[in-house]
Amino acid sequence: MKATFNPPVRTLMGPGPSDVSPRVLSAMARPTIGHLDPEFIRMMDEIKEMLQLLFKTKSPLTMPVSAPGSAGMEACFVNLVEPGDKVVVCQNGVFGGRMKENVERFGGEAIMVQDDWGKPVDLDKVEKALADNDNVKALAFVHAETSTGVRSDAESLCALAQKYGCLSIVDAVTSLGGIDVDMDGWGIDAIYSGTQKCLSCPPGISPVAFGEKAIDAVKNRKTPVPSWFLDKNLVMGYWGGGGKRAYHHTAPVNSLYALHESLVMLHEEGMENAWQRHQLHHDALRAGLEAMGVNFLVDEECRLPQLNTVFVPEGVDEAEVRTRLLNEYSLEIGAGLGALAGKVWRIGLMGSACNRRNVMFCLSALENTLSSMNAPITRGVAALAAEAVYNA
Amino acid sequence: MKATFNPPVRTLMGPGPSDVSPRVLSAMARPTIGHLDPEFIRMMDEIKEMLQLLFKTKSPLTMPVSAPGSAGMEACFVNLVEPGDKVVVCQNGVFGGRMKENVERFGGEAIMVQDDWGKPVDLDKVEKALADNDNVKALAFVHAETSTGVRSDAESLCALAQKYGCLSIVDAVTSLGGIDVDMDGWGIDAIYSGTQKCLSCPPGISPVAFGEKAIDAVKNRKTPVPSWFLDKNLVMGYWGGGGKRAYHHTAPVNSLYALHESLVMLHEEGMENAWQRHQLHHDALRAGLEAMGVNFLVDEECRLPQLNTVFVPEGVDEAEVRTRLLNEYSLEIGAGLGALAGKVWRIGLMGSACNRRNVMFCLSALENTLSSMNAPITRGVAALAAEAVYNA
Repeated sequence: MKATFNPPVRTLMGPGPSDVSPRVLSAMARPTIGHLDPEFIRMMDEIKEMLQLLFKTKSPLTMPVSAPGSAGMEACFVNLVEPGDKVVVCQNGVFGGRMKENVERFGGEAIMVQDDWGKPVDLDKVEKALADNDNVKALAFVHAETSTGVRSDAESLCALAQKYGCLSIVDAVTSLGGIDVDMDGWGIDAIYSGTQKCLSCPPGISPVAFGEKAIDAVKNRKTPVPSWFLDKNLVMGYWGGGGKRAYHHTAPVNSLYALHESLVMLHEEGMENAWQRHQLHHDALRAGLEAMGVNFLVDEECRLPQLNTVFVPEGVDEAEVRTRLLNEYSLEIGAGLGALAGKVWRIGLMGSACNRRNVMFCLSALENTLSSMNAPITRGVAALAAEAVYNA
Repeated sequence: MKATFNPPVRTLMGPGPSDVSPRVLSAMARPTIGHLDPEFIRMMDEIKEMLQLLFKTKSPLTMPVSAPGSAGMEACFVNLVEPGDKVVVCQNGVFGGRMKENVERFGGEAIMVQDDWGKPVDLDKVEKALADNDNVKALAFVHAETSTGVRSDAESLCALAQKYGCLSIVDAVTSLGGIDVDMDGWGIDAIYSGTQKCLSCPPGISPVAFGEKAIDAVKNRKTPVPSWFLDKNLVMGYWGGGGKRAYHHTAPVNSLYALHESLVMLHEEGMENAWQRHQLHHDALRAGLEAMGVNFLVDEECRLPQLNTVFVPEGVDEAEVRTRLLNEYSLEIGAGLGALAGKVWRIGLMGSACNRRNVMFCLSALENTLSSMNAPITRGVAALAAEAVYNA
C-alpha cells in the first residue's frame, strides 16, 4: 500500500518549474466546479482578458491550451503547417530542434537557420533564407531559449517575416512575464508560452494566441488538422468567445484556477514592474557570480535576466554540485543540455522565484559548495557584490 | 483589475468532473518540485505501479498522459493508426464519433458499427464487420459511454479482436474505478481513461496503458507519429522505466500529486469495495427515481452505476430544472448530448461523489424542483424507496 506523497520544500532556481506562490497553490486547491458552470465560464473569460493584456494582443483566439508548453508548440505547428509547406526554423538551442521535429511530423519542410548555442538568431542569415526560398509559409523562432538563456530579437525577426509575406510562430515559453512580449506591436502571428516559468504556476498549461492571419490560415487549410485535441477550429467554439460555448474537451479546472491567480498577481504588480524586478535580481546575481569568478555563457546585450547560464569552474564535477545543492540546501539549479551538458549550469530567476532572498541564498550555497570542493573561485565577495547592486 | 476567483461549492453529480475529495485538493496544493527531482521520480514510479493495479496490467507502458481524456484518446490513435489502416469503430454515443474523427485525421479508414444511443455495442455486428473486412488493424470501442450511461461487453469485444487478429483500443474514461476493467485478463491492447470521473481528481490527466502488441505496433510503424507531444516512442524514455529518465516534456507536477493521492485513496478502499459502493448508491438512487416515476434510458443489465441517464418527465423544461438545481441547491447534473439533448438528464455517482448524502440530496432537490414545476411525478416516496435499499 502506498502512502500520501509529501514533497520536500525546494527552492526552484532551475529552468522551470519555478517556485510557486502560496496564493497560487491555494487557488489550485479550491473546490472543483464543472467546466460548463457559468461561474467557470466567467473565470475563463477573465483568464482570456488577462492573457490578452500579457501577450499585448486583441486577438480573440487567446487561450490556455490544456497541456504543457510542448503541446502549445504543437498547437501552433499542427494547425499552421500543412503537407508540403516550407517553414524557416531558427535553431540556436534545444527548442529550435523541437520546432523542426514538429514541422516535419506534419509533413512540412523545415529550412534550418543554425546559430551557435548561446548566440541569438542571426537576422542576416534569416533574411537570406527567406530571400532564397519561394513560398515560405512561416518563420519560426524561440524568443527566449531555455536551453541557453539567450534572447533573440523578436521584433526584428517578425519584421522580416512580414517583409517576406510569411507567418511568424514564436516560442515565448520562458520570456512571457519576465521580459517584454508584444504580440500585436511586433506583428506576431502565433505565439505559445508555458505556466511554469515566469508566471510561476505549476506546469501543465500553455497560453497560446493566434492573430488574424494565423486564424485565416487555419480556416483556409486544404487538409484537416491532424489532431482533434489541438484543432483550433474546434477549440474556437469553446474559447473563441461570441456567446455560447460548445463542449470540446473537459478543461483542467483547478490548473486554470492557478493560472487565473498567477495572472491576477502579475497584473497587481504590473508587467513593467515585473520585468524590472527580473532585471534587478539578475543584476545582483550576476554581480555575485562574476565576483566569485563564475562567468556567463551569453553576451550581456542578449542575456535573459530570468535564465542565467554560467560556466562550471574548471575541474568541478557539475552533477555533484547540483546533487549537493539539492540534498544539503534543497535548492534546485539546472544542468546544461545537449552540447552544453557538463559545461554549464542554468540558474533560473523566474516569477515568484525571482527575489532577493533567493539570490543571496543561491550565491551563498553555491560559494560554500564550490569552496568545499576546492574549486578555483574567489571567496567572501559574492554577497557583498550582490548587496551593492541592491544598495545602489 | 481582476480579483482572486473563489468558486462556489458545488455538488458535482453530472457526467464529470465529479466531487474531488479534500485529501486530493490538499495534495494538489503541496509545494511544486522539479519534474526531474529524485523525489518526483519516486512518486511517478508509485503512480505507475498504482495505475498498473487499477488497469490490472503488468504493461511497462502505463502512464498518465499530461492532458485530459481527449488527449489520452488521441495518444492511442495517433500512435497506432497509420495512413491506410482500417479500424472498426463502434459508435453508440458521442465518443465513438470522436474515435472516428481520430482515425480519419491520422489517415486511417474507419469502418463504422452503429448502435442506437443507449444500447450496448452489438457483438454480432462487430463480428460481421471484422469478418467482412481484410487486414483490420484495430477494433475501437467505448467501454462506458459517458453520453448515455451504457456499458458494453469489453471482455467479449476484446475476444473478437483477438479472434480476428487485430488490436483493441478501449475508452475507459468513465469505467475506470467505478466498474471492473481488466486489461491483461481481457487482452486489451491500448486503453485510456480520465482523472475526473471515478478517480475523483480534477480534470487534466489521462491514464493510458499500451500492451505488448500495441508497443510492437508503435515500434514497427512505417511513418513517424504525427505528434511530438504524444509520441509513445519518446514518452517511453521518460515513463517507460528501465533506469534513467530522459527529459521529454515538463510533467504537470501538482496535477500528478492529486492523481497520486486519489490512487492511494482508491487502493486504501480496495477496488472491489469501490465498485460495490458504486453499485449500492446506484441501486438507492434508482429506487428513489423510479418511485418518483422517473425512468432510465438504459436496460438494467448494461446500465452503468456511475452514470444514470433518465428521461425528463413529460412537459418539463429540462434546462430550467438544471438551472434551478444549480442556483438553488448548488447541485450540478448533466444534460443530454446529441440526439438525447432536451430528453434526458445524466446523473453521475462517480468516485467521491458516490455517497449516501449525495443520493438523498439529489432525490430531494429533484423532487422539490419538479414538484414546484407541477411535473407529473409521484411525491413523497423517493427518499423512502432509497432508504429501503440502504436498510436492506
